Amino acid sequence: MSSPEFSIIEEFFASRAGGPNESLVLGIGDDCAVIDVPSHKQIAVSTDTLVENVHFLANSEPELLGHKVLAVNLSDLAAMGASPAWASLAITLPAIDKAWLASFAKGFFELAERYSLQLIGGDTTRGPLSITVNVMGLLPKQQRLMRSGANVGDDVYVSGHIGSAGLGLEKARQGYLNMMDAELCSYLKPNPQVALGRELLNVATSCIDVSDGLSADLSHLLKASGVGASVWDECLPVTESVRQHASKLSDDLWPYSTGDDYELCFTLPSNLNADELSKLHKYDITKIGVIEKEGGLRVEVKNGKIFTLNKGYDHFAS
Amino acid sequence: MSSPEFSIIEEFFASRAGGPNESLVLGIGDDCAVIDVPSHKQIAVSTDTLVENVHFLANSEPELLGHKVLAVNLSDLAAMGASPAWASLAITLPAIDKAWLASFAKGFFELAERYSLQLIGGDTTRGPLSITVNVMGLLPKQQRLMRSGANVGDDVYVSGHIGSAGLGLEKARQGYLNMMDAELCSYLKPNPQVALGRELLNVATSCIDVSDGLSADLSHLLKASGVGASVWDECLPVTESVRQHASKLSDDLWPYSTGDDYELCFTLPSNLNADELSKLHKYDITKIGVIEKEGGLRVEVKNGKIFTLNKGYDHFAS
Repeated sequence: MSSPEFSIIEEFFASRAGGPNESLVLGIGDDCAVIDVPSHKQIAVSTDTLVENVHFLANSEPELLGHKVLAVNLSDLAAMGASPAWASLAITLPAIDKAWLASFAKGFFELAERYSLQLIGGDTTRGPLSITVNVMGLLPKQQRLMRSGANVGDDVYVSGHIGSAGLGLEKARQGYLNMMDAELCSYLKPNPQVALGRELLNVATSCIDVSDGLSADLSHLLKASGVGASVWDECLPVTESVRQHASKLSDDLWPYSTGDDYELCFTLPSNLNADELSKLHKYDITKIGVIEKEGGLRVEVKNGKIFTLNKGYDHFAS
Repeated sequence: MSSPEFSIIEEFFASRAGGPNESLVLGIGDDCAVIDVPSHKQIAVSTDTLVENVHFLANSEPELLGHKVLAVNLSDLAAMGASPAWASLAITLPAIDKAWLASFAKGFFELAERYSLQLIGGDTTRGPLSITVNVMGLLPKQQRLMRSGANVGDDVYVSGHIGSAGLGLEKARQGYLNMMDAELCSYLKPNPQVALGRELLNVATSCIDVSDGLSADLSHLLKASGVGASVWDECLPVTESVRQHASKLSDDLWPYSTGDDYELCFTLPSNLNADELSKLHKYDITKIGVIEKEGGLRVEVKNGKIFTLNKGYDHFAS
């Protein structure tokens, strides 16, 4: 079954993309979209690609994929403290499969609409399945959350649970299908921490999203800030299943090296006032360590032993 | 050979991406780039993907590919009359090949620097070779070239030559390597009509770039404008080689259906003043037809016979 690119975009995407408004001068349907950024705002931009058999398993449920590819990009906006506004979607797929596209669009738009995000452009091409999203968000002028602001003495926090998506991937590989399972759901349907990211703006000293594994991502933050950190393993928020899995592997540090969590890792000044802190504690956040002058990431486990970590998921590891 | 994503971006792209300036608050290296759009400007955004064996032949020269994937996107900005400003680059490739990446980056940045375009984000992933670029340009507020403004009586123009890239593809398939060959060069190293696009802003009534074939793209413009057109085949700017190739195929209309030209097709009011027209004629442009009330695209060939065309390159045709 063949059908031109133009009508695919029309049928599955343009119809739900949302029309022009105060900021979106021109949406899908011309050579470019045109955006008039509000004068008191600046824009944050990020791009991420998901490839079949690399970032997701073959024959993945398209609705979940539509959710995930957007979630992964929204997580980058969250880490910058930006509010989602617009996205472009480039889908490469082997052949037109209308049921697949309808399901993908459902997952994509359900998440997009939660944030009033508008789809402003698309390209559909034929080839091995992969999806690239370019997302744009808005930030108040002069404000942004960066990786580079952590100071010695700051507290290190993470949101949600760490390692859950890693275990979820193991379960997915084994053919688990129950979306009520917490870890499987973390892996297949991550929940980007957009609201928390906005709350952290002007409060946190640094922030990154946990996509390649806590060890790798926190190490990026430390390097950008020119500092190091100690993390206390007993404080790490992990589910009982993840703790058991790590134990089975005789590798207590396993949760630090698995990717796909899409939580935020950030630092707060240790003298943050109680009001600010209690606002943040409305979110599911946990203090896991402290920023130190000495470079590197140290994890202290129960028996007092200290491990130095810096490995995460490597997209090109064989 | 394996190496983490982070260092690939660092080594081949971030170093040439250009630092922050008045508008680019934050470039590559954090979760997002941050852009402060000048207050008298709006932004134009477009995305295009090139996939190996679909949009380019296997084992294509990476330097040419780096040029082409950006050129294809700049062509969309040109069609909107926008000035190139920023781009994000998502590369999926089977394995790290440093020589390939260095060559790709060379082609990409040579074209980017011609337009002072800055790379603001990137994602490198493992998988079958494909490249997605998201490009952003600047437009004066309230101004843009659209597909939808053509009026009955307007003249229809194209820039450059039509069908050259189509013949270039045939030559590339046959293993031709001489980049002095006009058609091969059109196909492998298209020259986006950015300067012409800017000149057309506030002058042309409509514009589109010719990427999927003149017949398909002009038909999009006509549909968006709610009009039709007649084109005179004897006026179509084609090289002698393209004319001969069409003749060999016994298909005089072949140049209308081949893609990849990345020229502009646009309409001008028939009463455009002489000054404006002479400014435009500094570019290589040719009048090929006229906008009519009756819908559809009609091509009048030498013997007076009229063909109705509407087919172009279909990304999903088998």
